[in-house]
Amino acid sequence: MAKQKKAPRPKAETPKGFRDYFAAEVTERAEMLQKIAGVYHRYGFDALESSAVETVEALGKFLPDVDRPNEGVFAWQEDDDDGRGDWLALRYDLTAPLARVYAQHRNDLPTPYRRYAMGPVWRNEKPGPGRYRQFYQCDADTVGAASVAADAEICSMLSDTLEEVGIPRGDYIVRVNNRKVLNGVLETIGLEDDELRASVLRTIDKFDKVGETGVRELLGKGRLDASGAYIDGVGLSDAQIQPVLEFVNAFAAVQGKLALEASRALEEGATDRAQQLDRARYAVSPEFRDTPEIANDEEAKKIWTTRVLDHLQDLIGNSTVGFEGVKELRQISELLLAQGYGPNRIMIDPSVVRGLGYYTGPVFEAELTFEIFDEKGRKRQFGSVAGGGRYDDLVKRFTGQEVPATGVSIGVDRLLAALREKGRIQSHATGPVVVTVMDRDRMVDYQAMVAELRNAGIRAEVYLGNPKNFGNQLKYADKRQSPVAVIEGGDEKANGVVQIKDLVLGARIAKNATLEEWKERPSQFEVPRSDLIAKVREILEGQADA
Amino acid sequence: MAKQKKAPRPKAETPKGFRDYFAAEVTERAEMLQKIAGVYHRYGFDALESSAVETVEALGKFLPDVDRPNEGVFAWQEDDDDGRGDWLALRYDLTAPLARVYAQHRNDLPTPYRRYAMGPVWRNEKPGPGRYRQFYQCDADTVGAASVAADAEICSMLSDTLEEVGIPRGDYIVRVNNRKVLNGVLETIGLEDDELRASVLRTIDKFDKVGETGVRELLGKGRLDASGAYIDGVGLSDAQIQPVLEFVNAFAAVQGKLALEASRALEEGATDRAQQLDRARYAVSPEFRDTPEIANDEEAKKIWTTRVLDHLQDLIGNSTVGFEGVKELRQISELLLAQGYGPNRIMIDPSVVRGLGYYTGPVFEAELTFEIFDEKGRKRQFGSVAGGGRYDDLVKRFTGQEVPATGVSIGVDRLLAALREKGRIQSHATGPVVVTVMDRDRMVDYQAMVAELRNAGIRAEVYLGNPKNFGNQLKYADKRQSPVAVIEGGDEKANGVVQIKDLVLGARIAKNATLEEWKERPSQFEVPRSDLIAKVREILEGQADA
Repeated sequence: MAKQKKAPRPKAETPKGFRDYFAAEVTERAEMLQKIAGVYHRYGFDALESSAVETVEALGKFLPDVDRPNEGVFAWQEDDDDGRGDWLALRYDLTAPLARVYAQHRNDLPTPYRRYAMGPVWRNEKPGPGRYRQFYQCDADTVGAASVAADAEICSMLSDTLEEVGIPRGDYIVRVNNRKVLNGVLETIGLEDDELRASVLRTIDKFDKVGETGVRELLGKGRLDASGAYIDGVGLSDAQIQPVLEFVNAFAAVQGKLALEASRALEEGATDRAQQLDRARYAVSPEFRDTPEIANDEEAKKIWTTRVLDHLQDLIGNSTVGFEGVKELRQISELLLAQGYGPNRIMIDPSVVRGLGYYTGPVFEAELTFEIFDEKGRKRQFGSVAGGGRYDDLVKRFTGQEVPATGVSIGVDRLLAALREKGRIQSHATGPVVVTVMDRDRMVDYQAMVAELRNAGIRAEVYLGNPKNFGNQLKYADKRQSPVAVIEGGDEKANGVVQIKDLVLGARIAKNATLEEWKERPSQFEVPRSDLIAKVREILEGQADA
Repeated sequence: MAKQKKAPRPKAETPKGFRDYFAAEVTERAEMLQKIAGVYHRYGFDALESSAVETVEALGKFLPDVDRPNEGVFAWQEDDDDGRGDWLALRYDLTAPLARVYAQHRNDLPTPYRRYAMGPVWRNEKPGPGRYRQFYQCDADTVGAASVAADAEICSMLSDTLEEVGIPRGDYIVRVNNRKVLNGVLETIGLEDDELRASVLRTIDKFDKVGETGVRELLGKGRLDASGAYIDGVGLSDAQIQPVLEFVNAFAAVQGKLALEASRALEEGATDRAQQLDRARYAVSPEFRDTPEIANDEEAKKIWTTRVLDHLQDLIGNSTVGFEGVKELRQISELLLAQGYGPNRIMIDPSVVRGLGYYTGPVFEAELTFEIFDEKGRKRQFGSVAGGGRYDDLVKRFTGQEVPATGVSIGVDRLLAALREKGRIQSHATGPVVVTVMDRDRMVDYQAMVAELRNAGIRAEVYLGNPKNFGNQLKYADKRQSPVAVIEGGDEKANGVVQIKDLVLGARIAKNATLEEWKERPSQFEVPRSDLIAKVREILEGQADA
């Protein structure tokens, strides 16, 4: 008889583009999210947890970066008898579900509705290094408030949040722009076509990557990219490109103007004025943003903001939508300045466009400005950790009525990486006290010890593997990063004592100490069984102080 | 020209069987999970968050309740060029992913590996009232420990967890059984067939629903169920059924024996002994479990446990596996008693079988024993909130090597419902202080106020809707359950004051007060603008004390 073939063993692998998170990775994220939730709550935002699964119909097609292949969602069709079940999908962000939730529950929800949400989202994209198909987002949105005060609030909340989780002032900047201003500029150059406008938007968004020259080429005929491939341009004329670039480069233009004014003031002998104009000029420069002379000069910050807004005003000509956009930015700035959020924390920056097609007004982006070394060992700024804006059309898809909405999404993993980079994460890597097993028939004694330790609030466990090899038990304690091991063999039991090993000190002595130090500072202590808790606590406290 | 047809609007609905969670529902669950994580951490367990998506191959077919239609997972096939992409699915529990994680990372993980996990799982089942297709689980497992000390630890941890989240001792019981004992009983009646054994298991599991008579019928020829349908039985003979029922009913049998002994002792004039036997008899009875005479009588609890184990020993005859099972239960009991977990908290109960096929040794179940009223207004015990057991074969699927494992899963939503039922959830329904908008041009002033309040740690917001109708603003504050509203109109601004309304007191006065009380206890106060924070804080503290 032929041998029956066994089914092959399943592979123990996460699907491509997915990963597992262990121990401190999980708890550190949870703690950061809890701090963020605290700020959101203080601002009056309520928690919302919608289901991970939505109908494809409800999700709609608002995925960013629509020009990338393999874009999309994880979707499947519901089983039903006639094969016409609904198509369901995993949510790809937290905004599309919010629009659905608000449309569904709008009669029960307060208006405006401020909500925050935290959780995983899924993207059916080609995975790459450090690029996962499941990741966390953390959003806050206000639905039903047309006032730009709602946008300003999102910006100040974002600023507070970054400081709350441990990014010091000066190490971040929240940039604000307004789609309407850009639309105004495009109106002045006679660009009405929506497709063309979207292309311009996507091109400007590459400013950080390809620089001014690159954007100029891409807005015009096109350019050779680094790989040698020719990228077709949007096809604007030079006369059309110029105002767009002046818009994107407003930052540099205003700095230039202020430098000119300052040197004129100096010529006229108005030294104080010249110095203030100089401070205004550097109000948003990363290298000076946290110097007290600038951060505390309210007048300089006001000058900066006013000049940027005036510059934009010039660019939008007679455009009504452009005028409205500048007015909104002016209101946002006033509100923020009145609450103490100057341009050293939140600044107007016309180079921010945000890729998503659905934004209709103000857009925001939070960037961390300290430097890190990238994979290739080059210094670069950490970059963006959050973004958002106003989207007045998302709920309308469901209800037919326009519902104003604005919000922000924090890139949880990037922010966590930044905090680790800055050493702002309290380490939770400390393992439990390990009670070793010298005599497997006395498990009852060891369990009683560990119960005592736990009842005293000390993280502790009995070694539950095969106790035969004592060396394995200490190796295990080492792998667990245990601070202390407890040993009670037959002799100890008979004498009513236990051995307590300070594993942290032990490791340090083993590494560095001379023989004299070794003798002077023993890392193992014999104490009466009744002193177990007190001695363990003493050692743990000593380690915490060290 | 024909009018272009517009696409119909998408429906704003969660998919069938899914739901949204709002505000306090989210934060209360998060707080409960945090407390549970605290206990797990103290026991030396490390957090693990695996991806929500697994390959269908890795998940395997371990779903419970295999006899139900529409069982299963949400699954889809990966896109690739030749249509042979992997099948992926949402996890249906947290145990199958743990087996995959351990097999994948076993060289980097400590052994034994203690881990906890919390998060949603998905079941592609027919939804019903209160039955959702996405729900939370919260698991703790020890992988790589063959010792029953690991099972005992899971039980004591479960007991600690229930008390930590707010279930008082006496209101819960952790029941422990051992599959091996049941297998021993089945061996003695000559039942070797795996399918038949599984049917017996599923039948016993219905004990709570159909009672002893029902189980007897279902183990034999079958029975008419409540709807009038005839359910086929397993087909055992009466001689086979008897030992199975004695096993399931061990509880009652042991109580009967103890009652008999007690009355004999009384006849012999041994009053103290008779009373202790009576206390032993009631050691696990819900109505006496929390009475001090019984809960503190260690000897009575030992007697109970010993008698149950002796009873089981009788039932398994010469079965080797049965003998092993009883020995394991004896060890677990000893370990637990030594740590102070008597049968009033954790008891041996042979009626616990747990539906899942994959358990191989000890099984546990935590039940809440206080009474609630069900949908039909009938009193009943709250019932099961957690369960688990030992499963030594799950990792073997991947590696070919048997890896012992044991763990527990808490039904998060049921436990949360229990805590609400017991009034053990601190309410978080308090809304923010609402700063009303009397003059929309002075938004800057209102935002500054709200910033002051937030900086003082007070949850606060400005009304961001259309401010024209002041009544709408107060209605909004009401819907938000705001404790306090702040009002600053033109007159107040001119006089440097603000109006502060105590909305909680206001609502109470409006409901109950006589005109005199109304006059004596005003709910609106005019204070200098500079006293805003102090007065709001005073009112909030007063409300908290009330």
